[in-house]
Amino acid sequence: MTPGLGTRKAGQLVEIFRTPQAIFRASRSELQGTGLSAAVAQSVASGCAFEDAADQREKMAEAGAELIPIRTPLYPAALREIFDPPPVLFACGHMELLNSPMVAIVGTRRPTPYGVAAATRIARDLANAGLTISSGMARGIDTAAHRAVLEAEGLTVAVFGCGVDQVYPSENRNLADEIAKKGLIVSEFPMGAPPYPQNFPIRNRIISGFSLGVLVVEGGEYSGSAITAKLAAEQGREVFAVPGNVTSKMSWGPNLLIKQGAKLVQEWNDVVVELKPEVRRQLANAERRRLNINDIEASETNPSGSASILNSLTRSILGLLEHDSAKGLDLLIEQVENASPSEIIAALFELELGGLVRQLPGKSYIRVWAD
Amino acid sequence: MTPGLGTRKAGQLVEIFRTPQAIFRASRSELQGTGLSAAVAQSVASGCAFEDAADQREKMAEAGAELIPIRTPLYPAALREIFDPPPVLFACGHMELLNSPMVAIVGTRRPTPYGVAAATRIARDLANAGLTISSGMARGIDTAAHRAVLEAEGLTVAVFGCGVDQVYPSENRNLADEIAKKGLIVSEFPMGAPPYPQNFPIRNRIISGFSLGVLVVEGGEYSGSAITAKLAAEQGREVFAVPGNVTSKMSWGPNLLIKQGAKLVQEWNDVVVELKPEVRRQLANAERRRLNINDIEASETNPSGSASILNSLTRSILGLLEHDSAKGLDLLIEQVENASPSEIIAALFELELGGLVRQLPGKSYIRVWAD
Repeated sequence: MTPGLGTRKAGQLVEIFRTPQAIFRASRSELQGTGLSAAVAQSVASGCAFEDAADQREKMAEAGAELIPIRTPLYPAALREIFDPPPVLFACGHMELLNSPMVAIVGTRRPTPYGVAAATRIARDLANAGLTISSGMARGIDTAAHRAVLEAEGLTVAVFGCGVDQVYPSENRNLADEIAKKGLIVSEFPMGAPPYPQNFPIRNRIISGFSLGVLVVEGGEYSGSAITAKLAAEQGREVFAVPGNVTSKMSWGPNLLIKQGAKLVQEWNDVVVELKPEVRRQLANAERRRLNINDIEASETNPSGSASILNSLTRSILGLLEHDSAKGLDLLIEQVENASPSEIIAALFELELGGLVRQLPGKSYIRVWAD
Repeated sequence: MTPGLGTRKAGQLVEIFRTPQAIFRASRSELQGTGLSAAVAQSVASGCAFEDAADQREKMAEAGAELIPIRTPLYPAALREIFDPPPVLFACGHMELLNSPMVAIVGTRRPTPYGVAAATRIARDLANAGLTISSGMARGIDTAAHRAVLEAEGLTVAVFGCGVDQVYPSENRNLADEIAKKGLIVSEFPMGAPPYPQNFPIRNRIISGFSLGVLVVEGGEYSGSAITAKLAAEQGREVFAVPGNVTSKMSWGPNLLIKQGAKLVQEWNDVVVELKPEVRRQLANAERRRLNINDIEASETNPSGSASILNSLTRSILGLLEHDSAKGLDLLIEQVENASPSEIIAALFELELGGLVRQLPGKSYIRVWAD
């Protein structure tokens, strides 16, 4: 709440004085000794920000928001490592998502129908694969991504460029409420802070900072999503992009990113294969637990033993697939009885998520050894 | 013309006996000594292919075709280096194109309007940049590429999967005539050979073999163009692909190629920048000669001296651009008098081709030092 005190300097003060409390106990000359200007040192030493801080606590209580200081376990470990981590985060919702495996989906505020469709499909599939989807809740691609995740009953984190008690754009009031309830809203800006335009590029470094990678769906030549991608690359995060027709202005940004080295994404798995092995294993294990697939594997040798929640369709498809030769989708559809092609495709998708089945080119499937 | 004698073996025979003539003078046992089967050795030694060969000469004379043996200077040097170069090429048109800098543009026979538009634009621009465009004259992308080059008065080479006196598909009769007149038609298949389906994948290795790179515009999962791209990569040629919407089946192939390492192409220059420096220099020099730009450079210090063919518009644009700071297109349009925006854009394009102007992001232009 101290005017003129930036993120980097605030972080250094905590380093120097060990605790935030000690900063406020320090004298004006001790503060100036760390390189603070006279005005800022005066402002901190006088404690005149305390009234503002008390006001913040009240507003947080009203909104059900929490404060997450950088040195606490809930603070995202990955975000702590960027060049200028925010000293505190304001958060509203399920705090534990801050340390879940996240992938950001960002893009233009003026998407084409293609961009919305691509963002929706990939966000849904990645959420189903067990990833938390982060974005900025801006109009367009961001909103499409958040919505798709909520519809799939997945997990999503929205990073605001204003206070977590504000909503911008205002038409996203209901979306914000739903994210706060089922996901998480985060901001480094204090309660009540308005959505100043200059906040958004600053906010973007948080989106990429606590994510494993950033997927850009559509964006023009000088788009905010291009900036987020650049930040992501600088922070050592993966950069992904969905290509599009070279005649579409909104695909200019993603196509350029791919030319510069971003990974081309046709579907969800193009993201997952680039993640670290431990993250991929974590996702596959979670999915197997959800499907109770380890039981299934056992139940094949002992069919009556398990009370698997996996339905009989998934089970019979798994039985039809082999470890050493791929089977085409057409043949599977022919062989599986009492199930529509779309049910079969959905079941295959679940098995793929669980790491028990792999899709090969030409829509054929092979069973993989569970590790 | 000898049944059972393949490309590789024929090449080896020329290696062993030094000249084609010596092969036909060899005895049956000498031939069998090189590993030929009894039947093939018999067929060669008996000279029974001579009648067919004489017939070929007649057909070639009728069609105005030439034979280009592998050891002659007209034979494309790059093609000579592939694993299985054809021992002879049949050609109809401007033979010298065989050793000009070529880039292939290939793609699906069932393109979308987007694919046709992309192939047309990029083929035209690359032809304008001084490259010869090779393709297979198949329906769809190939045809669009050839046509675009001819319309731009550029140079194009069509590689047939049948004799150069045949036309396939038959609706391309006029296109074939025009290519033979202004460009070149090539085939390794003898005169009169019908377009057997198995010929086309074989033909594709020639397209990539004598080209610097192969650009794939649209193609499905298992398309012929994917095979050409694979061959090109194996031959050490550059592989380029035009991306497209991930929801379009026909962009599946190019998007996959990019994922596998092909260069993403948004516009002609994405191809040119990947070519070897000596080729790029050759293209820029040719363009400068065409525009007489070296004179322009001189005429700036001595305005009355030169009889440049470059028009005054191009000249005045060059005068407005600076070496050390970029100028936006909007500003140029404002500053240049008596010219429409599209005339100005065309002039800038010519200057860019000549390597005298470089386009920077945001549609701004900077003057570069001529080297």
